[in-house]
Amino acid sequence: MAQAQANIGVIGMAVMGSNLARNLASREGNTVAIYNRSAEKTRAVVSEFPEAGFVASESIEEFAASLVKPRTAIIMVKAGAGTDAVINQLTTVFEPGDIIVDGGNALFTDTIRREKAVRETGINFVGAGISGGEEGALKGPSIMPGGSAEAWETLGPILKSIAAVAEGEPCVTHVGTDGAGHFVKMIHNGIEYADMQLIAEAYDLIRRGTGKSPAEIADIFTEWNKGELESYLIEITAEVLRQVDAKTGQPLVDVIVDQAGAKGTGAWTVQTALDLGIPVSGIAEAVFARSLSSKPAQRAAASSLPGPSSEWTVDDADAFVEDVRQALYASKIIAYSQGFDEIVAGAEEYNWDIKKGDIAKIWRGGCIIRAQFLNRITEAYDENPGLVALVTAPYFTDAVSQAQDAWRRVVVAAAQAGIPSPAFSSSLSYYDGLRADRLPAALVQGQRDFFGAHTYRRVDAEGTFHTLWSGDRSEIEATDTH
Amino acid sequence: MAQAQANIGVIGMAVMGSNLARNLASREGNTVAIYNRSAEKTRAVVSEFPEAGFVASESIEEFAASLVKPRTAIIMVKAGAGTDAVINQLTTVFEPGDIIVDGGNALFTDTIRREKAVRETGINFVGAGISGGEEGALKGPSIMPGGSAEAWETLGPILKSIAAVAEGEPCVTHVGTDGAGHFVKMIHNGIEYADMQLIAEAYDLIRRGTGKSPAEIADIFTEWNKGELESYLIEITAEVLRQVDAKTGQPLVDVIVDQAGAKGTGAWTVQTALDLGIPVSGIAEAVFARSLSSKPAQRAAASSLPGPSSEWTVDDADAFVEDVRQALYASKIIAYSQGFDEIVAGAEEYNWDIKKGDIAKIWRGGCIIRAQFLNRITEAYDENPGLVALVTAPYFTDAVSQAQDAWRRVVVAAAQAGIPSPAFSSSLSYYDGLRADRLPAALVQGQRDFFGAHTYRRVDAEGTFHTLWSGDRSEIEATDTH
Repeated sequence: MAQAQANIGVIGMAVMGSNLARNLASREGNTVAIYNRSAEKTRAVVSEFPEAGFVASESIEEFAASLVKPRTAIIMVKAGAGTDAVINQLTTVFEPGDIIVDGGNALFTDTIRREKAVRETGINFVGAGISGGEEGALKGPSIMPGGSAEAWETLGPILKSIAAVAEGEPCVTHVGTDGAGHFVKMIHNGIEYADMQLIAEAYDLIRRGTGKSPAEIADIFTEWNKGELESYLIEITAEVLRQVDAKTGQPLVDVIVDQAGAKGTGAWTVQTALDLGIPVSGIAEAVFARSLSSKPAQRAAASSLPGPSSEWTVDDADAFVEDVRQALYASKIIAYSQGFDEIVAGAEEYNWDIKKGDIAKIWRGGCIIRAQFLNRITEAYDENPGLVALVTAPYFTDAVSQAQDAWRRVVVAAAQAGIPSPAFSSSLSYYDGLRADRLPAALVQGQRDFFGAHTYRRVDAEGTFHTLWSGDRSEIEATDTH
Repeated sequence: MAQAQANIGVIGMAVMGSNLARNLASREGNTVAIYNRSAEKTRAVVSEFPEAGFVASESIEEFAASLVKPRTAIIMVKAGAGTDAVINQLTTVFEPGDIIVDGGNALFTDTIRREKAVRETGINFVGAGISGGEEGALKGPSIMPGGSAEAWETLGPILKSIAAVAEGEPCVTHVGTDGAGHFVKMIHNGIEYADMQLIAEAYDLIRRGTGKSPAEIADIFTEWNKGELESYLIEITAEVLRQVDAKTGQPLVDVIVDQAGAKGTGAWTVQTALDLGIPVSGIAEAVFARSLSSKPAQRAAASSLPGPSSEWTVDDADAFVEDVRQALYASKIIAYSQGFDEIVAGAEEYNWDIKKGDIAKIWRGGCIIRAQFLNRITEAYDENPGLVALVTAPYFTDAVSQAQDAWRRVVVAAAQAGIPSPAFSSSLSYYDGLRADRLPAALVQGQRDFFGAHTYRRVDAEGTFHTLWSGDRSEIEATDTH
């Protein structure tokens, strides 16, 4: 049996797991135990990274014995049944007070279930969202742990030691109890979907509107990255657009099949929002844009569908590019506003005390949506912790007000040109819906009362009412039982 | 004990259940047994509708004994735990070969689960979607039964006797096994959400664009109901808009609180589409438009957000109204196309042999989305059963081609005017996305490969590839394991 000497363990030696273990090992004071279902893999990692000084185990019992108490282990396996299997193994060898961390991309409701089950053994279970991909895992991710305050006491310093640092602060905070961490990670990914789709639409509009090459558009993104849009995604967009394919000499983006894949967290964000009753239309359009792109048979059948019968031209390319920049910024604000609305609703539904400003802070580094912009979100929630919609904070209201004329011109141009802009136009419709004095939802309520006696409320009286549509069309007061 | 004399029973005597029982009793050859958890309610129904000749029971044993074999009972209780409770009761008193029908709005996955459990007892379980509201239940609904072919043999004639009739055909067909019926009913409701939202946007645009009164717009809808838009929803929209509130003398639509309610089936349609990878953006926008409307605190906080800085006016009201009509028709085609895509995907996923043309047929009468237009869908699937996207059928392609310039003008007007048009503009973006030669999804794939090594495919070679973005930026062939 190995001697207890490691203060942290990692289970699962695929790239994310081994990178996270290497990150941990590289920090002062950490000794890292590792374990993998296949021992061969463990041995390979040990020999490939001797500098890490890993304490390797070939059985789960040995792994547990190699950890000092309270034992703390991070599971880095593919989310799903494998996670449950490892948790079951660990609960047989861990003791009350020990800590099991699931660092995979678990659905937050699975994390809630697992936390409840593990808690009964006296062991702490922490679902921790980890963002930043393979490189983030190695060099410093953004980490979103849930679980108990007790577990955070032990885990906090370890996670702080490996997290990305933004403006001097580690990108990790105790998000809330049980599934809060994985919930917030899910929203992060949903926002990421929207952000990427908005960037893709901006690129498409500029390219088809002005005829600029991918390399020229790369320069535009590099320029944008110096302003209020500054972010990792804008930065890498420039890199991708600038890349030339060695085989063909063409821009790489023209060689890549235009069918976007998805791993499910975007869909989860929308499905959860539907359960919570939160309109996240921009995120939904981004998820749907990917699924539409991945339907080659449908797209082939539809390729002969006609476009606009009138020509569309951009007179002033520079002005158009600037309009697109502003449309992107305004739409991005809407995407974040919708994502934070979902965090607020989730926190209420599941009784999590989530500090919205702190979430924006830990997203400033390490993760895919990292951006300067997030400081503005932190400030907005610091100023008004009860903010009901992010876009109504003064900074964002000003930003959207200034951008909105350009935003409208871009949506208009896309519709006239026949260029799909689902996320731009959905965000604008959301904005106009949110600020509307009266919505035609009143007509919808009238229809529902007509065909289903679903009743309606009146602007001038308490209670619910029903018109006797099949009778004399008088109105009766109703109890809302339909 | 009652003598076995009824050929059909109904459990649950709330409005939907008692109306369906009365409908059954009114048809030649049916004798209807009824049962309700509270016997008081059963007695009230018996005494209120003596002409129905109900065979009433006050216990589930008595109810079972009153039915001739194979016993056939339709459960009409609020979907959820109550349904399971009644099923459990029935399985104790029914025998192999008997038939339990759930006529509630069950989630199709619950129906799959229940069918599997009940089948083990030898009893048939049929989940049947029933559309048409209270009036439909009484006078003739559209019925979408799933379950086994064996059950359909007994049940078919009974359901045909009470279903709505459209062009001489009863609006009922055996949709497919287990949950197929409730699945198709869910899609019906999803399409209904989109249809209602599109109508609401049309009304809002005309009202705010031309200043016409609700009564004048009612006349427009009445006129539209004579053409290709002819449908129940257009018809009742005219009725609702024409209604004057007796208390205030105002149009009723102006007195109704503009917050639309929802019962969940629209959200289910979108959540299921996300699982199936089918873009149903128009339905999603309709669901989100309702949830947005029902956020008074957010709307109040956002009410000072500015609208467009330039004035928007409609020069030619008649031309604008005609544009809106065409936009509504084109967007409606997209909504149905998305809904039928989801049926195709669901049938594939769950191994249902669903005849799409027959579904369109049984929606022609009884249900909320009943419309002439559905004949065109039946024709499209009759002509080409393997149609990959409804909008690519010649009739619909022609229709959308003719409407698209007007459609674009309406989306442009909405964006310029600051009038929310989430469903109109989302449908147009979907159309432009579906027919696009190249989508910027290629850039999204490039981004995903950059930050997550998710790999991409090339247009000119088999396999998956990865660019070494953090290395020398050469391309390697990759196995898609990320």
